[in-house]
Amino acid sequence: MHIGKPTEQFDQKGETMKKNYYCIIMAGGIGSRFWPYSRISKPKQFLDILGTGKTLLQSTFERFNKLFAAENIYVVTSSVYADFVYEQLPKLPSSQVLLEPIRRNTAPCIAYAGFKISEKNPDAVFVVAPSDHLILEEKAFLNEIKNGLAFVEATDSLLTLGLKPNRPETGYGYIQCDKASVRTEYPNLWKVKTFTEKPNSDLAKIFVESGEFYWNSGIFLWSARSINKSLHTFLPEVASLFDIRGIYGTQNEEETIQGIYASCRSISIDFGVMEKAENVFVLTSDFGWSDLGTWGSLYEHSVQDSQSNTVQGENVFLYDTSNSVVNFPNDKIVVLQGLHDFIAVESENILLICQKKDEQKIKNFVNDVKLKLGEDFV
Amino acid sequence: MHIGKPTEQFDQKGETMKKNYYCIIMAGGIGSRFWPYSRISKPKQFLDILGTGKTLLQSTFERFNKLFAAENIYVVTSSVYADFVYEQLPKLPSSQVLLEPIRRNTAPCIAYAGFKISEKNPDAVFVVAPSDHLILEEKAFLNEIKNGLAFVEATDSLLTLGLKPNRPETGYGYIQCDKASVRTEYPNLWKVKTFTEKPNSDLAKIFVESGEFYWNSGIFLWSARSINKSLHTFLPEVASLFDIRGIYGTQNEEETIQGIYASCRSISIDFGVMEKAENVFVLTSDFGWSDLGTWGSLYEHSVQDSQSNTVQGENVFLYDTSNSVVNFPNDKIVVLQGLHDFIAVESENILLICQKKDEQKIKNFVNDVKLKLGEDFV
Repeated sequence: MHIGKPTEQFDQKGETMKKNYYCIIMAGGIGSRFWPYSRISKPKQFLDILGTGKTLLQSTFERFNKLFAAENIYVVTSSVYADFVYEQLPKLPSSQVLLEPIRRNTAPCIAYAGFKISEKNPDAVFVVAPSDHLILEEKAFLNEIKNGLAFVEATDSLLTLGLKPNRPETGYGYIQCDKASVRTEYPNLWKVKTFTEKPNSDLAKIFVESGEFYWNSGIFLWSARSINKSLHTFLPEVASLFDIRGIYGTQNEEETIQGIYASCRSISIDFGVMEKAENVFVLTSDFGWSDLGTWGSLYEHSVQDSQSNTVQGENVFLYDTSNSVVNFPNDKIVVLQGLHDFIAVESENILLICQKKDEQKIKNFVNDVKLKLGEDFV
Repeated sequence: MHIGKPTEQFDQKGETMKKNYYCIIMAGGIGSRFWPYSRISKPKQFLDILGTGKTLLQSTFERFNKLFAAENIYVVTSSVYADFVYEQLPKLPSSQVLLEPIRRNTAPCIAYAGFKISEKNPDAVFVVAPSDHLILEEKAFLNEIKNGLAFVEATDSLLTLGLKPNRPETGYGYIQCDKASVRTEYPNLWKVKTFTEKPNSDLAKIFVESGEFYWNSGIFLWSARSINKSLHTFLPEVASLFDIRGIYGTQNEEETIQGIYASCRSISIDFGVMEKAENVFVLTSDFGWSDLGTWGSLYEHSVQDSQSNTVQGENVFLYDTSNSVVNFPNDKIVVLQGLHDFIAVESENILLICQKKDEQKIKNFVNDVKLKLGEDFV
């Protein structure tokens, strides 16, 4: 296998080549871990959870827009979140917002976008990325994306981005790479040996020490040809539902998609394709990444005051309070005293005070609230 | 000194005598210790702070109304709180609501009520009581009031109610009684030797152990003649301002009172009269009393759950939380986890979380909020 230096390729081939490069942002996730700040009715990708002035979706879009022409960026989300996307990305034409009528996990989402784009451009090569992750070193990240696009354009492969782990995190999936495999010319790109979902603490330590394991970022790169072929191979019933012609981009798309989703199974791309295919590679890097999956991860990536608190809210008064995540609306007056290692969050009439070490219990709290008060508050 | 058994006197003399018995409820206090639940704009006497379904003012009125005819009960408050009194005591005629244009502490308040009532009825005998105290044993309390009224009606004396201390509380004033003094026929009524404001902890212990010291309830009983004479003796400039004829009950009262208060000094009845007069007595008792001056005192007197929390708020979810005072509006959804010995209170867009042992710091928090946000939030 030989391919030239990817960054040069990308830049030298210029516009013609860039026209084949697409970005698919997945923005349909829900998730109760940031409750009550995020809700099913407004999940975290649509919130300015880091207090940067931009929502995570907006940050993700802007990041990719530095590499991809706006007309080649698609957002896939649930139809109930359509208005959030239209509001937050007003320049994105609605034809580039793909609406899922039901949640069916990542494989149908990727099949929908993949077959739709490949009908328009069979030479499409694309990155699929979540809308709610934090990336600190944008330049390094975009360079890896360029490298990855060049690799998957030149090869029939499914590529995932892996992050060098800096701690034995038990909340992430891990990718084991086969460092003895036939090497590409990319110094940081290997064939994948195994995928492991969230390991226990002992296993996570072994993974990190081994040097063979990387965090699974959930960011994928492939050509439309490769992923569509793999979908037909490993999820033929999903692929055949979405591999249709003459519908995408027409007024029949919405109704057809309704029917497809109704009969489509729910399955992740990891389980359905990546763990089964042979031609799976991982591009390993280190660009300051977090899936922002927990209040603790938000805390780690936010500016902290002298007492190591990360504070949002213009009228928050802290006394004898340290190592805490504090997040309140600006118009709320809040006095907190004597809290150490706590999460203290309020959003839309729901207050949560919880010890940081117990944040995994939040899903239980949410369930209790739901049982008593119904779906409106989760 | 000999006077007959007071309870009998009260009951036997019937209506004629009862017509001379008046009750003055002082409802002008502010106080930041229950912030943010109580505010200067709505202090605790106007709140249902114990969750009984009645405000403290309503409870106080109803308690005294069992002994005093409604037409003989007066409420003195700040003019800014007038509407709260009218709303909460709709049956009380506005002619019995005395409005103070400025806060001038208790002596002017008592002088106003005393001279006004004595013009109407020179034989008036009255009890003066705060509107925001808790009394658990109502029957015992009302019996003491009857005894006290009979005593002050028959003698030229100033009487205060003293409570048998059950702990070395440093938040109360103490009254030392002279148990060697000439005794009345009341087994629990003595001449007062000294008044001591909030003592330190060591002193409070000595006070309690001595058996000579009682908590100062701030409830006074006297005849109009006695208090008016004492005011003329010890606070002549205050007495002369209020000792006017032909104004009270007329349309000129409000304007005259405006002028009187503007030129009147601010002074407490304790410091201005009680600590200086010779004819001061204390009627000692034990009727389950609290001035409800702190969240801790509220906690002690409220129903507690199995984890020793006292909880108000219909949608409060507690996990691993104990010995805490929790008070939220019913429409607020609140999840608290991992709080032990805390105060967690919200009222009108202000949240306070504070360790119970540090509640004396609340006044500092309130001051900081005031400095940043102004008077509206304190």
